[in-house]
Amino acid sequence: MPYINIKITDESVTAEQKAKLIQGATQLLVDVLNKNPATTVVVIDEVNTDNWGIGGEVVTKLREQAQS
Amino acid sequence: MPYINIKITDESVTAEQKAKLIQGATQLLVDVLNKNPATTVVVIDEVNTDNWGIGGEVVTKLREQAQS
Amino acid sequence: MPYINIKITDESVTAEQKAKLIQGATQLLVDVLNKNPATTVVVIDEVNTDNWGIGGEVVTKLREQAQS
Amino acid sequence: MPYINIKITDESVTAEQKAKLIQGATQLLVDVLNKNPATTVVVIDEVNTDNWGIGGEVVTKLREQAQS
Amino acid sequence: MPYINIKITDESVTAEQKAKLIQGATQLLVDVLNKNPATTVVVIDEVNTDNWGIGGEVVTKLREQAQS
Amino acid sequence: MPYINIKITDESVTAEQKAKLIQGATQLLVDVLNKNPATTVVVIDEVNTDNWGIGGEVVTKLREQAQS
Repeated sequence: MPYINIKITDESVTAEQKAKLIQGATQLLVDVLNKNPATTVVVIDEVNTDNWGIGGEVVTKLREQAQS
Repeated sequence: MPYINIKITDESVTAEQKAKLIQGATQLLVDVLNKNPATTVVVIDEVNTDNWGIGGEVVTKLREQAQS
Repeated sequence: MPYINIKITDESVTAEQKAKLIQGATQLLVDVLNKNPATTVVVIDEVNTDNWGIGGEVVTKLREQAQS
Repeated sequence: MPYINIKITDESVTAEQKAKLIQGATQLLVDVLNKNPATTVVVIDEVNTDNWGIGGEVVTKLREQAQS
Repeated sequence: MPYINIKITDESVTAEQKAKLIQGATQLLVDVLNKNPATTVVVIDEVNTDNWGIGGEVVTKLREQAQS
Repeated sequence: MPYINIKITDESVTAEQKAKLIQGATQLLVDVLNKNPATTVVVIDEVNTDNWGIGGEVVTKLREQAQS
């Protein structure tokens, strides 16, 4: 019955990668807490880099700096 | 003053259906807890089926299996 | 498969009232979107009035003003 | 290490405004709680006005009424 | 920079189990998306069984039925 | 109408500090986006340090290491 929400920046994550996140997070709850996978829900939010900040900086700008 | 967040898969939900969810959730808090509807907030998140998992499976795949 | 989160202030909500919120929110998703109740999850968060603000004011203070 | 989530309606918010929200929210946690900005995360969610309700009404409709 | 929120029922989860959830969720994001673990945040919410519902039923009641 | 959620570790935050977070976050939305403070909601979640992880480590342990 766990609910897991994964928030990541929206940077070309593939459907296959999302499937791995869903499988892995569900399995983690089985392994650690013996939770029933059938009712374990995983929701992935992909957030535009303009809308994510760390250290007071917008990620869009951090990405540009990292590439220059 | 309650805040209600409804997360559903993004599968052709109409504006009229969203209005009914907002009305119904607001009324529920009035009926059960006598909350003031004027400051009751409802936010609906529509999540791509690639980003929602249950039972370790991506919903996109579950929908395909259900149709075949 | 919907996930509904209801945030309310922590002010003597009874177990019976919580059960009604869970039943009502689940039924709302059945009625409006024909969702499967078996996998519909409702989580209620009760938030201390010191930790909830509206209009820039802490709810604890608003409650005191309303009573005086 | 704080995590701040700001939900607003999706109404032409500029990248510059988002940067100001991220800077301001991060600074607020520094000023009030002396938190380390380097690990303070801010995520902004822009929500379609069809998906946001207050007072039981959809914001899209409230905006139309305000303009007429 | 990912943010992962794990919601589980409040049923005697140990500090060691929480540490395993935090380690495992962080490693999952490294393995699948090559995310930097240093800025990956995991928050675990333990929810009273009176406040969690599935299938329209309160978990407290489901636990009682499972034991009888 | 914005909704702001601030998650911090549960480490002796005072009611006065919470009031400042609520005032400051509400004012930020007024200053940057000209939002109506009357319907701006702020919710503060205080999370046990056992339940918060960064860099794959539990904050409780990080705090102990920082003090030793």
